[in-house]
Amino acid sequence: MNIAAISSPAGIGGLAVIRVSGPDSISIVESIFRPFRPTHILTERPSHTLTFGTVVNDDGSLLDEVVVSLYRAPHSFTGENVVEISCHGSQFIQQGLLQLLISHGCRLAEAGEFTRRAFLGGRMDLSQAEAVADLIAASSRAAHRLAMSQMKGSFSRRLSELRDRLVELSSLLELELDFSEEEVEFASRKKLKELASDIHTQVASLAGSFRMGDAIRNGIPVTIIGETNAGKSTLLNLLLGDDKAIVSEVKGTTRDVIEDTTTLDGTLLRFIDTAGIRDTDDKVERLGIARTYRRLDRAAVVVWMIDGTRLGDANLTEEVADDAIRTLRLIMPYLHREQKLIICINKADLVSPTALRQNLPTLQGSLNLALQHADIDISSSSELTYVTLSAKEGTGISLLRETISRAIALPEMREGDVIVTNLRHFQALSDADAAILRVLSGLEANLSGDLIAEDLRQCNFHLGSIVGQVTNDEVLSSIFSRFCIGK
Amino acid sequence: MNIAAISSPAGIGGLAVIRVSGPDSISIVESIFRPFRPTHILTERPSHTLTFGTVVNDDGSLLDEVVVSLYRAPHSFTGENVVEISCHGSQFIQQGLLQLLISHGCRLAEAGEFTRRAFLGGRMDLSQAEAVADLIAASSRAAHRLAMSQMKGSFSRRLSELRDRLVELSSLLELELDFSEEEVEFASRKKLKELASDIHTQVASLAGSFRMGDAIRNGIPVTIIGETNAGKSTLLNLLLGDDKAIVSEVKGTTRDVIEDTTTLDGTLLRFIDTAGIRDTDDKVERLGIARTYRRLDRAAVVVWMIDGTRLGDANLTEEVADDAIRTLRLIMPYLHREQKLIICINKADLVSPTALRQNLPTLQGSLNLALQHADIDISSSSELTYVTLSAKEGTGISLLRETISRAIALPEMREGDVIVTNLRHFQALSDADAAILRVLSGLEANLSGDLIAEDLRQCNFHLGSIVGQVTNDEVLSSIFSRFCIGK
Repeated sequence: MNIAAISSPAGIGGLAVIRVSGPDSISIVESIFRPFRPTHILTERPSHTLTFGTVVNDDGSLLDEVVVSLYRAPHSFTGENVVEISCHGSQFIQQGLLQLLISHGCRLAEAGEFTRRAFLGGRMDLSQAEAVADLIAASSRAAHRLAMSQMKGSFSRRLSELRDRLVELSSLLELELDFSEEEVEFASRKKLKELASDIHTQVASLAGSFRMGDAIRNGIPVTIIGETNAGKSTLLNLLLGDDKAIVSEVKGTTRDVIEDTTTLDGTLLRFIDTAGIRDTDDKVERLGIARTYRRLDRAAVVVWMIDGTRLGDANLTEEVADDAIRTLRLIMPYLHREQKLIICINKADLVSPTALRQNLPTLQGSLNLALQHADIDISSSSELTYVTLSAKEGTGISLLRETISRAIALPEMREGDVIVTNLRHFQALSDADAAILRVLSGLEANLSGDLIAEDLRQCNFHLGSIVGQVTNDEVLSSIFSRFCIGK
Repeated sequence: MNIAAISSPAGIGGLAVIRVSGPDSISIVESIFRPFRPTHILTERPSHTLTFGTVVNDDGSLLDEVVVSLYRAPHSFTGENVVEISCHGSQFIQQGLLQLLISHGCRLAEAGEFTRRAFLGGRMDLSQAEAVADLIAASSRAAHRLAMSQMKGSFSRRLSELRDRLVELSSLLELELDFSEEEVEFASRKKLKELASDIHTQVASLAGSFRMGDAIRNGIPVTIIGETNAGKSTLLNLLLGDDKAIVSEVKGTTRDVIEDTTTLDGTLLRFIDTAGIRDTDDKVERLGIARTYRRLDRAAVVVWMIDGTRLGDANLTEEVADDAIRTLRLIMPYLHREQKLIICINKADLVSPTALRQNLPTLQGSLNLALQHADIDISSSSELTYVTLSAKEGTGISLLRETISRAIALPEMREGDVIVTNLRHFQALSDADAAILRVLSGLEANLSGDLIAEDLRQCNFHLGSIVGQVTNDEVLSSIFSRFCIGK
């Protein structure tokens, strides 16, 4: 079956591209195309060539002047004959061309159908096909890099290596079964355990990378907390300010609408808004604050805003410190080891710099002491990070940006590093890990090889499902329905 | 200088196209491009070929897998070396690729700069270049056809023929001057007059086609009038309903935001809203109604809504007729000969069909009588058109559509027919016509040839300005600034 769709973004532009794929795509396009040079007959043109000509309606009238790109099977994106028609980017022409192709034997392509054909035709495995959609949706350098690496097959290669190890394990197990009656080769159990343990380590590490991969793809969660009047929303607007345009563009796409995002040094940040935090007896208010606490758990970085005006007065500093310790005690149960806590002393414009310099250490000392007595160790650096700023006047903002940027610094990625970004992959890896762990405990318990073999098959099955070696139509449909039309 | 821009519509899609034009465009793209086949060196590839490869950032990281289309000068849109990079349609990749090209020696193209280069390079004349922008903006079949015909040069050919006649006239005039002292060849003045008169007829006819061309391009104005409770807005919504999506898409473009438009049988209609019409002594209300009258003048079709409920009662029919005649007297001064008037009897669902059939002729007779006594003859057909409908229930709507469609029926356009759609062209044609009329009256007044020659030159100048044979930078900038970036 031959399919067609508009592959360029929806809307009006200088040009648009209609993609056609299928065994008859070249002759279908030829039936509506008149080359400028009569010798340039499309069905006779070599692959990878461009041909100028006009597209003609069935009534003989001219629809457009176009350029036709020809890719002959199997040297195309889908592996089938592919024709791309580059036309003028008017709505009228794009729709007219599509309708003409449909009346000449094409079907309108479903979302992701070209990529699905590329997968079914063996041009790429399933994880690479999924990376194509991620690549198109990527809105930060880091997300783009992960998708590109996955599309180029780094993840597929890692999985292929792992499955080779599984095959090795499997054949050793069979060998053991063959010789089991002779009761030789006891040493091989040790080797089997080593192999299984190694596979587990690798699968678990891949599964473990999902937390980071997800953060990169969907944005690293940054939560701003603090009392209501501490200046949280002013700060948020300031941080988002430069990127407002990009933010709205991302929101306009078909991706989930997320909370405000911005990119910082090529990394996507997702800001999570919270209610003001304060100790209260009001039941309803406590509920709102409890929600804030729960959101704390999702944050990779917590920016804690403190109103710094009272730090101008040495007599009030103890009071500020007491308030801060009380807040710290409230939020502490919700913080965890991997989080970074950045303390922002806001409204610095209202305080004399000298007074601030003198009184800040009191606050810092008290908070450090409180932290040492608590059984939680926030942030990998034992020191808390303090940033003094004025959200209202914008001073100190670049220092805060740098501090956040350092706090979220992702480990250097190198060519070939694999980080899992896809929930489906994460689930398959977790299932594979559970299976290999059962293999391990089976080996420990000295179960016979045929009992262990099923779990090995399970592990292999789950790893294979990632690249699509074992899959079904329903899974494929769910994967490709998330693509855009025309890809 | 080498220029680059995103040529596909703004946004995210399966793929996007970045266009690069200029003497060094091929080597610039080569500097960021790694072909999949090492032998496919871009600077050595033949024209009109497609090359697969990757685009690499300056730090060696992969930006995208792309396909590069190569067009060597002069066989390209601009006439220069042109490279088109088809990349994945993410915002990040599109922007990254553009920035990479800029850092490697391109400048961001201005709006319409590719087409401007095509014009300056002699690939097309100015009226054809302008047609490219019209083609992209065309949202109806009729507007598309006009733009396509102009782009293919039908207008240019007509102008060229006209200028040939001017040259003929000019040389005949010179001949006359040469032989003037011998006082022979009196007959040639007659021939000169015939020639000038023929040129005037053609130029005036082209200029006269602008009214229709403008209507096709910007929509044929349809005004709905009637009393406030006659159901105007219900009808408007019904007429616009099917096309709401297209309407909003068109509105989202950079074209002037116009009143509600819809297409009917491939023709764009522009609906003009009006205040309710009634006889009143209130000063402010009269002002509003006066505005409605003025808008009547702009309409090609006037749809007059009459509340038909009272037509169910024979005793009230005279009253309805009297009201209608009063309204007709109010609007008559603002109607003109070319307009079609369609009278809609609305709310047919509230009236018995039999009663309506019996009482409608009374209304029709009264209105016809009133029209016969007025010194205006509305619509080319002497009969008024009546449509009975229920806007609320949607019955009769398709009949109204057909009636409007017949009323606006444009003369069949044939291949090569020229209709002027561009205000700049209309103005130049009007100026040319004024000049050739001065030539004519000079000939009538038996002025000497050297006095007439200047007006001939003027006429030629104005016709030449349309195709851009005489023009200046300022005019070009104003023309091309209305283009989209990337075209």
